[in-house]
Amino acid sequence: MYFGACYYPEHWPEERWEADAQLMKEAHFNVVRMAEFAWSRLEPSEGEFDFSWLDRIIKIMEKYSIKTILGTPTAGPPKWLMDKNPDMYQLDIYGRTRGFGARRHYCFNNSEFQMYTERIVTQMARHYGTNSNVIGWQIDNEFGMIDTARCYCRCCCEAFIGWLRWKYDSIEAVNEAWGTVFSSQTYRTWDELHLPAYAVHQHHNPGLALDYRRFSSDSVNEYQRLQVNILRHYTTGQLITHNAMGKYNQVDFYDVSKELDLISLDVYPNMKSELKERPAYAAEQHDMTRGFKGGRNYWVLEHQSGAPGAVEMAPTPVPGELRRWTYQSIARGADAIVYFRWRTLPYSIEELWHGILQHHGEPGRKYEEVKQVGMELMKLAPLLSGTSPRARVALIRCYNNEWAFELQPHREGYEYIKHFETYYAYFYERGIPVDILSPEADFTGYELLVAPNLMMAKEETVHALYRFVEDGGYFITDFRTGAKEWNNQITQKRLPGMFRDLLGIGIEDYGIIEGDQAVGIRNLHTGRVSTANMWYEVIDLLPLESAAEPMAVYTSNYFKDTPAVTRRAYGKGCGVYIGTVPDKKGLFGILDQIVSETGITPTLFGLPEGVEAMVRVGTDDRRRKLLFVINHTEDAVCINLDTMCRDALTDRTVSGAFVLNSQDVRVLTFQQETKSIPMLFG
Amino acid sequence: MYFGACYYPEHWPEERWEADAQLMKEAHFNVVRMAEFAWSRLEPSEGEFDFSWLDRIIKIMEKYSIKTILGTPTAGPPKWLMDKNPDMYQLDIYGRTRGFGARRHYCFNNSEFQMYTERIVTQMARHYGTNSNVIGWQIDNEFGMIDTARCYCRCCCEAFIGWLRWKYDSIEAVNEAWGTVFSSQTYRTWDELHLPAYAVHQHHNPGLALDYRRFSSDSVNEYQRLQVNILRHYTTGQLITHNAMGKYNQVDFYDVSKELDLISLDVYPNMKSELKERPAYAAEQHDMTRGFKGGRNYWVLEHQSGAPGAVEMAPTPVPGELRRWTYQSIARGADAIVYFRWRTLPYSIEELWHGILQHHGEPGRKYEEVKQVGMELMKLAPLLSGTSPRARVALIRCYNNEWAFELQPHREGYEYIKHFETYYAYFYERGIPVDILSPEADFTGYELLVAPNLMMAKEETVHALYRFVEDGGYFITDFRTGAKEWNNQITQKRLPGMFRDLLGIGIEDYGIIEGDQAVGIRNLHTGRVSTANMWYEVIDLLPLESAAEPMAVYTSNYFKDTPAVTRRAYGKGCGVYIGTVPDKKGLFGILDQIVSETGITPTLFGLPEGVEAMVRVGTDDRRRKLLFVINHTEDAVCINLDTMCRDALTDRTVSGAFVLNSQDVRVLTFQQETKSIPMLFG
Amino acid sequence: MYFGACYYPEHWPEERWEADAQLMKEAHFNVVRMAEFAWSRLEPSEGEFDFSWLDRIIKIMEKYSIKTILGTPTAGPPKWLMDKNPDMYQLDIYGRTRGFGARRHYCFNNSEFQMYTERIVTQMARHYGTNSNVIGWQIDNEFGMIDTARCYCRCCCEAFIGWLRWKYDSIEAVNEAWGTVFSSQTYRTWDELHLPAYAVHQHHNPGLALDYRRFSSDSVNEYQRLQVNILRHYTTGQLITHNAMGKYNQVDFYDVSKELDLISLDVYPNMKSELKERPAYAAEQHDMTRGFKGGRNYWVLEHQSGAPGAVEMAPTPVPGELRRWTYQSIARGADAIVYFRWRTLPYSIEELWHGILQHHGEPGRKYEEVKQVGMELMKLAPLLSGTSPRARVALIRCYNNEWAFELQPHREGYEYIKHFETYYAYFYERGIPVDILSPEADFTGYELLVAPNLMMAKEETVHALYRFVEDGGYFITDFRTGAKEWNNQITQKRLPGMFRDLLGIGIEDYGIIEGDQAVGIRNLHTGRVSTANMWYEVIDLLPLESAAEPMAVYTSNYFKDTPAVTRRAYGKGCGVYIGTVPDKKGLFGILDQIVSETGITPTLFGLPEGVEAMVRVGTDDRRRKLLFVINHTEDAVCINLDTMCRDALTDRTVSGAFVLNSQDVRVLTFQQETKSIPMLFG
Repeated sequence: MYFGACYYPEHWPEERWEADAQLMKEAHFNVVRMAEFAWSRLEPSEGEFDFSWLDRIIKIMEKYSIKTILGTPTAGPPKWLMDKNPDMYQLDIYGRTRGFGARRHYCFNNSEFQMYTERIVTQMARHYGTNSNVIGWQIDNEFGMIDTARCYCRCCCEAFIGWLRWKYDSIEAVNEAWGTVFSSQTYRTWDELHLPAYAVHQHHNPGLALDYRRFSSDSVNEYQRLQVNILRHYTTGQLITHNAMGKYNQVDFYDVSKELDLISLDVYPNMKSELKERPAYAAEQHDMTRGFKGGRNYWVLEHQSGAPGAVEMAPTPVPGELRRWTYQSIARGADAIVYFRWRTLPYSIEELWHGILQHHGEPGRKYEEVKQVGMELMKLAPLLSGTSPRARVALIRCYNNEWAFELQPHREGYEYIKHFETYYAYFYERGIPVDILSPEADFTGYELLVAPNLMMAKEETVHALYRFVEDGGYFITDFRTGAKEWNNQITQKRLPGMFRDLLGIGIEDYGIIEGDQAVGIRNLHTGRVSTANMWYEVIDLLPLESAAEPMAVYTSNYFKDTPAVTRRAYGKGCGVYIGTVPDKKGLFGILDQIVSETGITPTLFGLPEGVEAMVRVGTDDRRRKLLFVINHTEDAVCINLDTMCRDALTDRTVSGAFVLNSQDVRVLTFQQETKSIPMLFG
Repeated sequence: MYFGACYYPEHWPEERWEADAQLMKEAHFNVVRMAEFAWSRLEPSEGEFDFSWLDRIIKIMEKYSIKTILGTPTAGPPKWLMDKNPDMYQLDIYGRTRGFGARRHYCFNNSEFQMYTERIVTQMARHYGTNSNVIGWQIDNEFGMIDTARCYCRCCCEAFIGWLRWKYDSIEAVNEAWGTVFSSQTYRTWDELHLPAYAVHQHHNPGLALDYRRFSSDSVNEYQRLQVNILRHYTTGQLITHNAMGKYNQVDFYDVSKELDLISLDVYPNMKSELKERPAYAAEQHDMTRGFKGGRNYWVLEHQSGAPGAVEMAPTPVPGELRRWTYQSIARGADAIVYFRWRTLPYSIEELWHGILQHHGEPGRKYEEVKQVGMELMKLAPLLSGTSPRARVALIRCYNNEWAFELQPHREGYEYIKHFETYYAYFYERGIPVDILSPEADFTGYELLVAPNLMMAKEETVHALYRFVEDGGYFITDFRTGAKEWNNQITQKRLPGMFRDLLGIGIEDYGIIEGDQAVGIRNLHTGRVSTANMWYEVIDLLPLESAAEPMAVYTSNYFKDTPAVTRRAYGKGCGVYIGTVPDKKGLFGILDQIVSETGITPTLFGLPEGVEAMVRVGTDDRRRKLLFVINHTEDAVCINLDTMCRDALTDRTVSGAFVLNSQDVRVLTFQQETKSIPMLFG
Repeated sequence: MYFGACYYPEHWPEERWEADAQLMKEAHFNVVRMAEFAWSRLEPSEGEFDFSWLDRIIKIMEKYSIKTILGTPTAGPPKWLMDKNPDMYQLDIYGRTRGFGARRHYCFNNSEFQMYTERIVTQMARHYGTNSNVIGWQIDNEFGMIDTARCYCRCCCEAFIGWLRWKYDSIEAVNEAWGTVFSSQTYRTWDELHLPAYAVHQHHNPGLALDYRRFSSDSVNEYQRLQVNILRHYTTGQLITHNAMGKYNQVDFYDVSKELDLISLDVYPNMKSELKERPAYAAEQHDMTRGFKGGRNYWVLEHQSGAPGAVEMAPTPVPGELRRWTYQSIARGADAIVYFRWRTLPYSIEELWHGILQHHGEPGRKYEEVKQVGMELMKLAPLLSGTSPRARVALIRCYNNEWAFELQPHREGYEYIKHFETYYAYFYERGIPVDILSPEADFTGYELLVAPNLMMAKEETVHALYRFVEDGGYFITDFRTGAKEWNNQITQKRLPGMFRDLLGIGIEDYGIIEGDQAVGIRNLHTGRVSTANMWYEVIDLLPLESAAEPMAVYTSNYFKDTPAVTRRAYGKGCGVYIGTVPDKKGLFGILDQIVSETGITPTLFGLPEGVEAMVRVGTDDRRRKLLFVINHTEDAVCINLDTMCRDALTDRTVSGAFVLNSQDVRVLTFQQETKSIPMLFG
């Protein structure tokens, strides 16, 4: 277990460094992240490298037994470098240079910039690649942030054409894949191809537009690979990672994670815009991050430690809140907690982005809280080692479909990810752990797959899903699934395309539901009527041997009494189709029914609202289990586990029932299994 | 009567063509529109023309007795063409190139592009100009769509200066017309003139700005003329048209229509944003289109046949809805119904723009509905032939005033066209047919003219209006009428300028009414008080021989008890002036009073709300009459005509009273005139 | 006292000029402002000057005893000039040229434009510098209007670098002041510096961004100085001024005013967006303008005289309204009233900006009203001479802090000036006169200083404030005060930084209050609970000899029962700190308590809401006093002064009680002092 903070020695007088290290030591830190924005200090002028200051601080940290994670500093190329050739800047969709002054002001496809990248990374890797105090590397910083994965410069245009040539055999194949015959958009030669830049309107051909998104994501990944290769060459025993932002979606983080030893997360659970559902908001990012590498533990390389803010601030964490979020992170699979940042900076656009220490640098309430966590983690570390969360349910989040819906929301205001989150909310609220996976992940071991809006899927994926259901899995999907080919064309098969047989249904007719015209649906199991919005599909039950059967029907409109939700037994499993967007009650009713059939249970039964429970299980020895119970609410709550257990933080025995204060956390171990906590020993 | 669909053979495998033609034939199609976006297939490389595929499909269509309307493909210039010279692209107000990827990415004034236009149109005209299966030509596509009539490139600047030289004798005349002495904006030479492009603020001189709008409209028209001239030269017996969008206003469609044999309309009655007043929304477009050529029948070259949508979809038509809109179109003067499109395209930005067939291409419910209409139209065609709607009322919609109000709305949120539509709504809701005409139209035969916001008018127009009233006509106009000269200067005459005598009033004082400060007005006839918004004018009754008299007075503010609405007997007629924007009740009260005096009646009395009735009358033989009754509501309604008639679709005799289902339509003929249906035999 | 209008002889036929002068004379005008947009008439081509027309109209005015204020015409450079070199145009943040068509389309730092400026101003100054009919000069027009003080062109970049070199000793000093070490933004050489132009995001380094704002303001001031120097050289006995807009904030008008003989104001009290608080809206601008030169009288060079409007109109003044606003201006220190404009122009973007005469040019109700004012002012002028308003309270408005909050509002939606106005509203509503001053003003003679959000202050200012309190003054400030250094870095001192001792408090913890989470505060004096929004600070009372004491405490959250507002006796005075944004009741409660302690009283006790009272006091002889009572409401009100006085307009004796009609005004003098009107004889 790593525990520490992001530290920027270059921001502070060298006289202060040792005092900081001492304070960190007292808070039980064993790691710092450094240097990821220090390019201008590491290479002050072209080809002139200065690692001496970084050597000195790493030495100081060593003295206090604090290891270092180094960032490659490529997210912040210095002014002298950008002045060499303005072509290195990104251009926006209008062709305007996105100039100096923020960060990531470079084009991933610019070969000159790649050359500078190679040089600084090589120099650092050579210098620190065998330093035993350096335990890992973070590549660049938060790929895809502030809309920086998509550039419209000339060299991106050339790279895009190259990418298309690699993907498609011929220009005819491009024309066919995109359907350029529409509106006279046929290309005769490769060099007639172009980026989806500013035009009469911004609704470019969906095939072109989706390929450009894929290309942009690949460009970022290719740029990362350039760095990974250098690091692999020069380093020994150091882990390579990248700090992803769970929900940022300009880059396919499943791809990004492939090359890495492990993936990391930057998490700020308490951001202004997410007032209502904070715990789920952060939990989802953890689950997404774990899923980037198929369900494996990860690091948190930036963990909120105060009010974030650039020009406007987010809320200031109340006492106990930092500790609470920290335990949520660990409970969901974080094996490193690195707070951002050690001390609040008095200058720059991040001067309101608060760290553990305030601007004046003296320990205060946040430091004391972090220190307490440090002390507790000293105790927990051996128990946590070799454990990770486990889930019987997987949600599938697919960047390609997310992008396709961004390009064509189908219905005003519709968002793939918001829709995805209605399913996530179900499992979070029911206390059922989930993994969030790529459609290309290995589904072995899961019992229930939920794949909202699987509008396009590779053939392999479709086959895997058929096999999954044949073998006894439950598969839930919904509207538009199967409606498109992988090239973003609509299928010419009858809907739902390749899923027709698995689901046993046909769809001839569909449409939007406008804002003020919600449609009723009746759950045939419960008899309850709820409303549906956004989209409807008129579902035909196909005359197959084992026919699909309705789970809910519409209660109005010209498709009244026809199925809105269906299920079909297929092989040993079951395929469920939801043809509309039920409201929360409607959706939860359907999911309750299916989940109950599968026998999947929550981590703990009967938890009060706002209390989160997660288990970390030993990977080798499944009997090793830690239960985390976290009170996100503003009130104390009573928890009843109906069994004796041991408080891992106090080493005291706890009877099954206890009071958990607001913001408080329990980490519990159990001597014997108990039926009352099904998931814990499932 | 033409009946068919837009067909894109280039989008589908040639093997499929004949099957499509067969299905069309079965649906009683007799026409298709083709080729209006096929430039890259007709001229795949510069100077290389390929009409063979188009020849083949026209042949196939011929085999099934289906005629062809050809579009000139100039709205979609191919990439190879645009790559020749990027100067052909339009520039936006900031000087940014509106690049490839949508359509209409060309500048109307670029001579190189005009040359390419000339060549492709000449080639097509030569090839098809005497083909008897080709019955007509559509020029380009939807002029003015997506803000494409106004370009800010260098050659537009030159063309604008040329246009100004042609319009004004001297640079001094320009300076005087625009009043450039204000703020030191005087021009010394022609080449100092410029477009109203991006500046410190976008409020350019109103004279300059209005002339630029006129110039842009003229540029489009000039570009059309280029094509019309070629077609006139090479074709025989083929009609020339353009598919206008009724309410689009970047181009003056009165001008566009002048050169054409007939005008056409693209109509999508059920678009998302128009939820509430759909029937009037489409009806208005029909009436506008009919008015583009002074009240003559027209073609519908794109008629909705499914849910439209680019990135978001509009509602899917419910069963019966396509048929209902089709009859509305015919009732209001359409002599051709061409559905857009035959089959939904699986690719491109229009992949969600649904046609008669779904993506998979097999007949479904929409095909069956269209087929039913086809069958019915076979019966109706002889009856429809030589008939058209007739109106005793004309509304005047003037692009120049619409533009002037766009440039200076006078009051925040004020829109000329929305105001126009409050008058349109009155006549639509009262069931009184209207024509929507240019201020330069021939007013002969009308009994009531309504000209909202006739802020500027040519002297001829003013004289025509005086004559119209002298001869017994009723003329209703309202605030700001007469306030401006044709050059967009405010008149230095006392208000309402040239209309002072006709209306018998003077206006010294006026102002806006702010959002929360509605003013009361009392109808002196009914005594009812309603509210007025947006604008007030303080009206003086001039001491003339036959004085104007108030119809309504204000009930508050410093102008309390002064006239808000006046009328003056003039000649044999009457001039009515409304100095404010009464709410619906207030306006309808005034109009009811005037309409009742004129003796103008609705098509049918006592129709339920949401039921539309229109009559088509024989142009030569006025006794030939077809009554259309259309139920736009979601419920069945009872209609009572109080007279026997014949159902033209079933040939059955119908007693005067019948039930009309939701979405349903009756087309009726009458053996004898009846007093109960005044308009029908007026 | 000057009284007149803005007159544009170049807009009207020369035949009309004398008629206008006659009408002006009849309205008792003694001044016109002319020529400030006449560059193209004064220099029709390069180097060709024509003053003859201006000579003629000045002559005509002379004939009617009307003096002239001349504007230098530099806000409207002619097209021939701008065509010389397009580099003279301003560039926006994206590098786009802000082209011809509005005004102020020039870059203040362009040396070529400065040369043209020098030439025209020199020519005018030579020609009119000794003309006794020309009494003053207005430099340019409304600096900072329409976002024209900030340009992003190359020569601004160079000038900015020059400005930085002048300000900072070395590039290292720049790096340190801004904290460029953050995110690798260090500059090595002067030429690497740049403007805060379009970048990946627009949140540039706060030090850079604030310095750019200061530089821009200085550039404008430097440009003004260029003109002032010329005028000083060539003119004799003519006053130099500039017409500022009180609340426009791109230029520091304290700086602008320094070079000038007096400052002027353009005031339009009745603009649409300010419906609710009109009287305070205009009053604030008057008080600000008076404060630009530390509390001295000023001119109004544009005074509303009709409905203003460019593309949309603001409300039309009701009868009596122009007179009412005129008296408000005079009561608050205006020594010249120049209406904008004489006659409404029939063309140009200001054709809806209404003047005294309507477009047709004949006298109407507004002329008659102005004429009445003219007559009254003839009487008042001797009484007004040598008098000005006096205040015991000063509010501090600081451009540097306003800019810093614009750059970083801290909390979504927070605005410095809106917050400032909650304090202004208190004093306006309580009827207590205030001066609005620079933080660098002389505070001598004031008894209460209110400095909201004094986040950064120069050391001199801080010392002056300590001295002010020591000497017995009351000082009220609030959250974030002392939080920053003058270079826009956050202080590394413990908060509230340099104000710690004065206020006796420490602040370790703070945060935003989100929209729906208002916090309660209880006034310990009144016991009343009100709500607070936006921001909270957790205040520690420092263990000092004379401790601060709470005036109000929070009623909820983790800082419940801790102080929200404190006061500390310091020296002979008192320092008050408000750590949050109380609602109106909460703030007024605190201020009432403090004001009551100071003994500061309103001008008149017991005035009805919406009635404004101001006193002008003799500067030399304080016994000379004029009381203005202005009824801004729509109803007549009763005023009771409890003492006899004399109506200065009618010369009649008035008993202390009288009725004041809606829109009406009284100007009163008193024979003897009376206790009932404390401020009047305070």
